[in-house]
Amino acid sequence: MKLASLKSGRDGKLVVVSDDLARMADASEIAPTLQHALDNWASVSPQLEDLQKQLNNGESAGTPFDQTQCHSPLPRAYHWADGSAYVNHVELVRKARNAEMPESFWTDPLMYQGGSDTFLAPREPVKMPQAEGFGIDFEAEIAVITDDVPMGVSPGDALKHIKLVMLVNDVSLRGLIPNELSKGFGFYQSKPSSAFSPVCVTPEQLGDHWKDGKLHLPLVSELNGEKFGEPNAGIDMTFHFGQLIAHAAKTRPLGAGTIIGSGTVSNKLDGGPGKPVKEGGVGYSCIAEIRMIETIQSGKPSTAFMQFGDRIAIEMLDERGQSIFGRIEQVVEQA
Amino acid sequence: MKLASLKSGRDGKLVVVSDDLARMADASEIAPTLQHALDNWASVSPQLEDLQKQLNNGESAGTPFDQTQCHSPLPRAYHWADGSAYVNHVELVRKARNAEMPESFWTDPLMYQGGSDTFLAPREPVKMPQAEGFGIDFEAEIAVITDDVPMGVSPGDALKHIKLVMLVNDVSLRGLIPNELSKGFGFYQSKPSSAFSPVCVTPEQLGDHWKDGKLHLPLVSELNGEKFGEPNAGIDMTFHFGQLIAHAAKTRPLGAGTIIGSGTVSNKLDGGPGKPVKEGGVGYSCIAEIRMIETIQSGKPSTAFMQFGDRIAIEMLDERGQSIFGRIEQVVEQA
Repeated sequence: MKLASLKSGRDGKLVVVSDDLARMADASEIAPTLQHALDNWASVSPQLEDLQKQLNNGESAGTPFDQTQCHSPLPRAYHWADGSAYVNHVELVRKARNAEMPESFWTDPLMYQGGSDTFLAPREPVKMPQAEGFGIDFEAEIAVITDDVPMGVSPGDALKHIKLVMLVNDVSLRGLIPNELSKGFGFYQSKPSSAFSPVCVTPEQLGDHWKDGKLHLPLVSELNGEKFGEPNAGIDMTFHFGQLIAHAAKTRPLGAGTIIGSGTVSNKLDGGPGKPVKEGGVGYSCIAEIRMIETIQSGKPSTAFMQFGDRIAIEMLDERGQSIFGRIEQVVEQA
Repeated sequence: MKLASLKSGRDGKLVVVSDDLARMADASEIAPTLQHALDNWASVSPQLEDLQKQLNNGESAGTPFDQTQCHSPLPRAYHWADGSAYVNHVELVRKARNAEMPESFWTDPLMYQGGSDTFLAPREPVKMPQAEGFGIDFEAEIAVITDDVPMGVSPGDALKHIKLVMLVNDVSLRGLIPNELSKGFGFYQSKPSSAFSPVCVTPEQLGDHWKDGKLHLPLVSELNGEKFGEPNAGIDMTFHFGQLIAHAAKTRPLGAGTIIGSGTVSNKLDGGPGKPVKEGGVGYSCIAEIRMIETIQSGKPSTAFMQFGDRIAIEMLDERGQSIFGRIEQVVEQA
């Protein structure tokens, strides 16, 4: 099943979307918002599934689906926590600033909590008061949405609580991170509002691509129209989503509609850092990584962070080239 | 005006409460939930004010108000960020673990984002899988709820966005903090669900006690029935709530219903750390502080963190001894 939230009020209006993203059907009589559906998932999801079946088999004609009319599936959420499951990415970031990575990072997930009250729509500009010094970067990631998760859930049981999967651009302000992290309380100002893909889908809909709590397909990032990365999200993911959820739920339950992110998707190459797309590699899911490689190779980075007017697009295609989640596409603008 | 949310569904049922907390009137026809009221504050709050006037002057009899039937005013919220405005507290915590405090902490607020999807009710037990090693502590604080705040708001303008004030017990797991902070991403597992006072009130309702973005009254904490602290929340607060909100809104807008906390309330004495209540001081708003004093004085702490069965109560009284926000009262229990 595929779901989306059309822009409407603070929480959007729920629609089901056909598998090919061509048509949609109003689902607001079943559940006015996605949060409402998640709050009542057991009773509501079968009705939504029925509606989507009718849309897919032509029983219901539906109306044309326009991604530009979408907000993020949850325009605001009660919980958004982002892991750092591709430890390769963490190791690279640390290397670039000459910081050793503790061995425990391979067994104990890193996770931070992000602002969830004001998500951006998937095609909404990233507005910042300044580019200079802020180091505006994108981070292409996978995220899942859960139902109610009990405290102390096991990684295996946690997988059953994953109701929906989507993509995310976890905007990061690299210039603000070092100072902020040195204060010891983690990210806050350096992680502004994130944007999610227009469409979220059930794990079942992903078929064989969803396996062992990971999504086994390339995640494509395009910076200013050029392919920047296409690492496979199923490769080099040290912690699967069940492990990330269990980490989040160690000392508290998670409410329905909790969003858990994978962290920046990153693939190794022959045990070392990957190569840029233009050199035949799978590239990167954020600018910071290519800057690290450049720093390691030549002493300083040559790729700039995002400037006003720069455009980032994030998408995932199935084996037939069909977009699964729709396309995040955002321009950086001056606030 | 005083508002509360009776336990009902996921988001409670909104009631207005009489100034003396004796009676209440159903406000759900004006706004079903507090979040709904905050989403539409400009149009809704005058109607709520009218209802409260009728309750206070006897025009409306109302029904008896029972604090034990309350959930936290927002049973779940889209944003809960806690500052550390009483820098005295931060300096003490650092001293106890031999860590120097950077000078910038006096000018640049510390803030972390907490879990807001599953708040505890004000009389709900704090359930934890273990006490041993977790170092269960309370933190008595003041918190404000905002309406929509634009990105880049000034500290002065931010004050106008404070719609409601309440108390909070920001439960902390001291035993998990050192390891978690050493990972560099801030608090997550070490900050489980918080509980808020049964009643939240408008700044206007606080009269002269609300001044310059601070609440100038003692915040009383009782541990197992004995007074543990009564520091004045208006004293030694280095950053007022307008400054904390402006910090939170530097790189993103804040959605209506954002909760911003003050951090643990802490008063100095003659320029140094305060004295325990039993020695004639104003005491402390968390156990960690008295343990620091003990460590500084005698090399090791003698007061234990909370064990199963321990009880914490947090309340604020006006000059006539009337409880303003009602009483947080929580027992620690095994999950």
